[in-house]
This record gives sequence, structure tokens and C-alpha cells, in this order.
Amino acid sequence: MLDLPELGHAPLKQAPAIADPTVPGFMGAAAACGLRKDGREDLALIAVQRAVPAAGVFTQNKLPAAPVQVARRHLAQGRLRAILANSGGANAATGGPGVEACLRCCQEAGRQLDCDPHQVAPCSTGVIGQLLDDAKVRAALPGLVAGLSPQGLSEAAGAIMTTDAFRKMAFAQVEIAGRPVRVLGMAKGAGMIRPDMATMLSFVLTDAVATPAALAHILGPAAGLSFNRASVDGDTSTNDTLLLLASGQAGHAELRPGDSGLMELGRAVTRVCQDLATMLVADGEGASHLIRVLVTGAPQAAQARAHCYAIAHSPLCKTAFAGNDPNWGRLVSTLGAEAGRQGWPYEPARLNLWIGQAHLCQDGLHGGAEAEAQAAHVMKQPRYQIHLDLGLGEHSFWVLTSDLGHEYVNINADYRS
Amino acid sequence: MLDLPELGHAPLKQAPAIADPTVPGFMGAAAACGLRKDGREDLALIAVQRAVPAAGVFTQNKLPAAPVQVARRHLAQGRLRAILANSGGANAATGGPGVEACLRCCQEAGRQLDCDPHQVAPCSTGVIGQLLDDAKVRAALPGLVAGLSPQGLSEAAGAIMTTDAFRKMAFAQVEIAGRPVRVLGMAKGAGMIRPDMATMLSFVLTDAVATPAALAHILGPAAGLSFNRASVDGDTSTNDTLLLLASGQAGHAELRPGDSGLMELGRAVTRVCQDLATMLVADGEGASHLIRVLVTGAPQAAQARAHCYAIAHSPLCKTAFAGNDPNWGRLVSTLGAEAGRQGWPYEPARLNLWIGQAHLCQDGLHGGAEAEAQAAHVMKQPRYQIHLDLGLGEHSFWVLTSDLGHEYVNINADYRS
Repeated sequence: MLDLPELGHAPLKQAPAIADPTVPGFMGAAAACGLRKDGREDLALIAVQRAVPAAGVFTQNKLPAAPVQVARRHLAQGRLRAILANSGGANAATGGPGVEACLRCCQEAGRQLDCDPHQVAPCSTGVIGQLLDDAKVRAALPGLVAGLSPQGLSEAAGAIMTTDAFRKMAFAQVEIAGRPVRVLGMAKGAGMIRPDMATMLSFVLTDAVATPAALAHILGPAAGLSFNRASVDGDTSTNDTLLLLASGQAGHAELRPGDSGLMELGRAVTRVCQDLATMLVADGEGASHLIRVLVTGAPQAAQARAHCYAIAHSPLCKTAFAGNDPNWGRLVSTLGAEAGRQGWPYEPARLNLWIGQAHLCQDGLHGGAEAEAQAAHVMKQPRYQIHLDLGLGEHSFWVLTSDLGHEYVNINADYRS
Repeated sequence: MLDLPELGHAPLKQAPAIADPTVPGFMGAAAACGLRKDGREDLALIAVQRAVPAAGVFTQNKLPAAPVQVARRHLAQGRLRAILANSGGANAATGGPGVEACLRCCQEAGRQLDCDPHQVAPCSTGVIGQLLDDAKVRAALPGLVAGLSPQGLSEAAGAIMTTDAFRKMAFAQVEIAGRPVRVLGMAKGAGMIRPDMATMLSFVLTDAVATPAALAHILGPAAGLSFNRASVDGDTSTNDTLLLLASGQAGHAELRPGDSGLMELGRAVTRVCQDLATMLVADGEGASHLIRVLVTGAPQAAQARAHCYAIAHSPLCKTAFAGNDPNWGRLVSTLGAEAGRQGWPYEPARLNLWIGQAHLCQDGLHGGAEAEAQAAHVMKQPRYQIHLDLGLGEHSFWVLTSDLGHEYVNINADYRS
């Protein structure tokens, strides 16, 4: 059966409270260094007392931001001492000068933390095409380092927000070899209509004991079942970065690829990433709905996946969601259009569509007035599922998406002003 | 060199006047038969005195509307006597009953026009999933046939509008073998953010003398250079239909594939289709800008094409257009994301981008404050071009698109209510 993550019940723009948002070994701090025009906190530092095993998943965009280029290189050694993240500028499409500005920040962080600059992973988010004013970052670093504390992780999560409506943190605890292991994640990102363009940053911290290879082994699949299903390939902005660091203080034997304990850790990391990805979509710019699009009965996996994205990308479908309009014709036509483009099978008479439990399209035809009324009711809820069954095979896929309303236009028509 | 059609200078929501919108042999009429709730004209009939050579291009959607299924069959004989088009309902996703309702309309039209029902091409536009109330159509047919007149073609163009802000007609005249030949086109469609979902109907009438094969020979390429470049594959809605009919009254020798006169006719048909496609995008729902996206310097044609569509599809880019914001970072990131997904080459340092004449991105870096100010000025114009040169090869492509603003959300969030 399909293993679908919970859609949740909370109001959309709100994260569940975490009783104790700390992880042994990790500290955080935040500052307003002046990169943001509005004076809000814009610089976050996450540090651990020694360089620890780490893994990363980065954007596949062919225009990777300077910090992505640098972080990829630094992570090649498999160990990190700190993450230095700023909002207020993506430092993307800034060429050689962008990379040099980024490296100067890492050098200063290394000096302040007394570590190799290669153990610092830089991350940036904000407008593309603006060179990072690294002097502001460097000037703020001594204060940041002095302010590091276990409780500061929450502040760090706040400092990486851009258009986010709320601070995104998620937590899970598992037992590995009889020892409790904590997994704490934070993320920023709200331009989720196309997360392949809006920057997604996420940092997941755990006190598990694991090799860098073990962390890399679980992080890719976790991203595939979470961020990469948030509206569309979350892996393709200029700055998207997902980092996993393990402080190794949980006291169990070191996990390596193939260990059963690693599978347990992988499940916890996946759950934390899914919670964060759900928050990202729920906080989609201007979103009033969080919608899971589920396609089943496809003759091949690629078709199920493409159909999900076709709906998640369609302005016509997404505006109908914003209007709480069960316009099922737009949904089935979107799939038919995609099938036509790709030469895939698509048989209207086998098609069934549910919005929540409302069976709106039955074997290709309208499900009737009652189903329509029921669907309209479902669509007033903040969170719901749209399920399309093609009736042609055994493959399925799901993505999370949001609606497209006025607030999205408000935010994006003048994002830079 | 690239053969780019004119963007035009008129206000967006306005069609140039046509002195004499008639074509020898053709007559038209319109009526309000009650399919539309607002009482507006919703039924158009175009007829010619005898069955004449015709060709069609239809949607590739795998959920073709009933009228598309029927019109395809009827056109197989290569001759048409009439086009019967309604707004107020797409008759798509209506299964067997939809096809039967459509056939009953053709039968009644055949009876009234005293012709074979197979010589009637039906077209529908409106909400998907609503069965055509064919009794209303049939009841209106006697009056429609009685009202046919050469001047009625303009009324027919008005009756097929749905959310269109203005009536779309275009005209061209060419000389073939010393005889003047007229080409008159009409179209409807305004949901042009994804024309593969909004229905596009277009009827092109000429008094040229040509075989059905000759018409088919020129119609496909004409669609490829016009409607299929309007925002995105214009060929994939449930109802999209482009018909070309030739009354044969121009008095020159019959044109066949390979004739030089046919090339002349093809250029005129292409120009008429381009004018109509430009109007469709200019009338894009809520659009305040008509934008030609031109990609050059691509190492292969598929990449140039995909990059154009990636921008034409990106809500982030389109909302920036609505805000007159020269957010070039979103544009180059969109291309980088697409290149990353497809594994295509993309070298930021070779990238150049112009908005109008403003050289906003020079060899991958920001073109400076003056270029930005100039670009912001260009983006206030109703019609402009965005040109991206990849610097990697000789291939190019262009598409026409519009911006995405509040009015689009207004129209589409409650389209059905």
C-alpha cells in the first residue's frame, strides 16, 4: 500500500510546538547584519564543538549559487563544523566575485570558530543576481560565535526566513540500540508554486553516531520522499540546500550503510523532512490550501509522476483550488493534455477522481450534483487530497501543492521592491 | 535570420478593423440559443453554398471533446459545407451521450442546409464536463440558416467568444496567378496562460481554389508558427480546433501540394493565423502585457523550445512581468533549472539577456543600474520582447506569452460560477 505522510490538521500558517528544540552537541545563533533592508535577522550560525559527519543534497540547477558551489566542495570531506546561512540575497549569478565573497565568509567563520574554513558550509537565500556584501557578514561573526547556545537553534531557524509566514521546525525521536536519538530539522521556503526556483534551505541535526557515507545513504531517499515532492522537483533552484549533520553524542555504535539502526534513523530523518516539506507547501506564498495530488492506476511510474506535476503546475487548476471550485474538467483535461504530449495511454472511460471522499468523476463522467456539493465542501478545508485513478496499471505517485490566489500575485509581482 | 512576426502596437484588448470582413462564397449567422446563462450569443453558423475542400488541425489531448471526435471523422472526406460552433459548454468528458448530442446537431444542420450531416463540422467551447443541451441548438438552427449572410461572418466571430475581451478577426489578401485571393480568419480564446487547456477555436476562410490535400499541406505549418507558439502547445486542449475552408471562387487553377501558388496561399494563411494567435495572447485572461520570449544560441532546437516554454510557464516569471519587475535572476534561474532537469549544457558566463534593448545580463552578470532602469521602462509597455542568448550554438525558438496578474486569478478562481 501507499505510505502517505499525514497532511495534518493545524491551521496552515502554523508549526506545531516542539517542547525541546535542541540536539546534544549543536548550538545556534542569529543576528541582523544588515543584508535585509527591513532590519530583520538575516544571518544564522549553527555550530558543533568538533567537525562531525555530514551529508548534503544540493540543487541540480545549472546556475548554482556561489554558496552551493562552495558548500559542495567543502562537503566533499564528509565533515562539517558549522553552517553559515544568510537571507537577504542569494549570491547567485554573481560569477567569480560571488564565490570569493562566499569564501571570505567561510574564512572568517573558520577563524572565529578556530577550525578549517572547509568545515563551514555556506548557504544563501534571497534575490538572484545580487553579490553578497560579505563585509556585513564578517563583521557580525564574532558576535554570532559569542552568542552560540543550544537554545539558539530556534533563532537560527528564524533568521533564514524570507517570505515565510512562520518558523519551520520539526522533531522526531527514535531508539537505536536502546539509546534515544534526536532528530531536529529546520527549513525556510515559501515560494512553493515552483520550489525549483524559490530557494529551499533545510538543516537536519541529529545526535546519532554515523559515518558520512551512512548519512548520505539516507539523506537522498529522505529528500525524494519530502522536499522533492513539494509541488515539483525541489532540487532545481539556484540555492536549494539540504544538510544533515550528526554530532555522534547518542552513545550507540557507529552506523554504516546496511545497518538496521541506520534504517531507523532514515525513517526519522524522512519523517522530519516530510513534516518540513508539508510546512513549506502550507506556507506556499499566498496559499490558502495544502493539497496532496495522488495519481494511481498508471501503467508506468513516470506517467504517474508527470501527471501529479502537471496538475501541481497548472495555473488553471491552481486558481480553481483558490476559488474552492471543484472544476474536475480542468483536472482530467490536464492529464489528457499531458498524455497527448507524451504519447501515453489515457482512457477517459476508466478515469475516476475523488476530492476528499467525493467521487466527482466516475468512469470518465460527472459524478452528479451530490458529489459536486460534497467536493465543494471538501475544498473549503485548508488541507485535502485530490485522487485520480487512471485505471490502467499499478503505478502511483503523489506530490504536495498549494493553490494560486491573489496573495501569491501580491507577493511575487513586486518581490524585489 | 529569424522570421519573427510583428508584435503590433495597438492597445492589447483591441483588434484592428477589417474594411470588408467577407470572403466570396461564405456566409455566417449567430444566435442566442440559451446555452449561455447570460443570454449572450452562443451559437455560430458558417456555411458555404456547396461542400468545399477543407482541412483541420485538432487537439492532441487524449480526452478529445465530443465535437472534436465528430469533426475529425467528418473531415476525413476532405469537404465541408458548414461549421456549427457553440460557446456555453465544451461537451467534453461527456462520453457516448456527448457524441450523440453532437451528432443530432449535425443531423439537424444537414437537414436545414439540405446537405449530408457529415459535411458539418461541430465545435464547442466552455466548461468541460457539461453535456451539450442539443435541443436548444436544434431549435435555433432554422433561424440561423434563414439569417445566413456574407456580413454574418463577423457575428459568428462574436458568438464563439467566452472570456474573450474582444472579437478576433484577421485578414490578408494575396495574388495567385494574377487573381486576388482573400483569407479571413476568426478565433476565440483568452485563457492563454495554458492554451492547451483553454479552448482555442479558429476558422480560416479563403476563396482560393485548392484540393483538400493542398489545404492540409499548408495548415499544419501555419499552426506551428502561430497557435502552437502562443504560450505553449496550443494543440492540447480538449476542444482546440483550427479549420481551413476554401470556397474556390477566386478563379485561378486548382492548387496542389508543390505549386508555387500554394506557398503564397500558405504564407497568407500563416500571417492570418499569427495575427489571430497574437490577439489570443494579447487577450490572455487578465494579461496586461504581450511578451515574445526569444531564445537563441542553443546547441539544439529542443533546448531552445523548452527554454521558451519554461519561461512562458513559470508563475514566478509571469508575476514579475505583471509587476513590471526586471527580475532577470528568475529568468536565468528558470533556464538553469530546466537545463539541470534535462542534462543540457548551460554556461552562466556565456549568457546574455535583453528586455527590449536593455542588456540586463551581460555574460552571466548583472548589466548595471542603467540597463535595469531601461528594462523597467520597457516592461511598462504593453508589448515587448525578452531575448535570451545561451551562447552555445545556432538554434533558436520563440513563443508568445502574457503576464500573470490579479485579473487572471479573478477570472479563473470562479470561472464556473
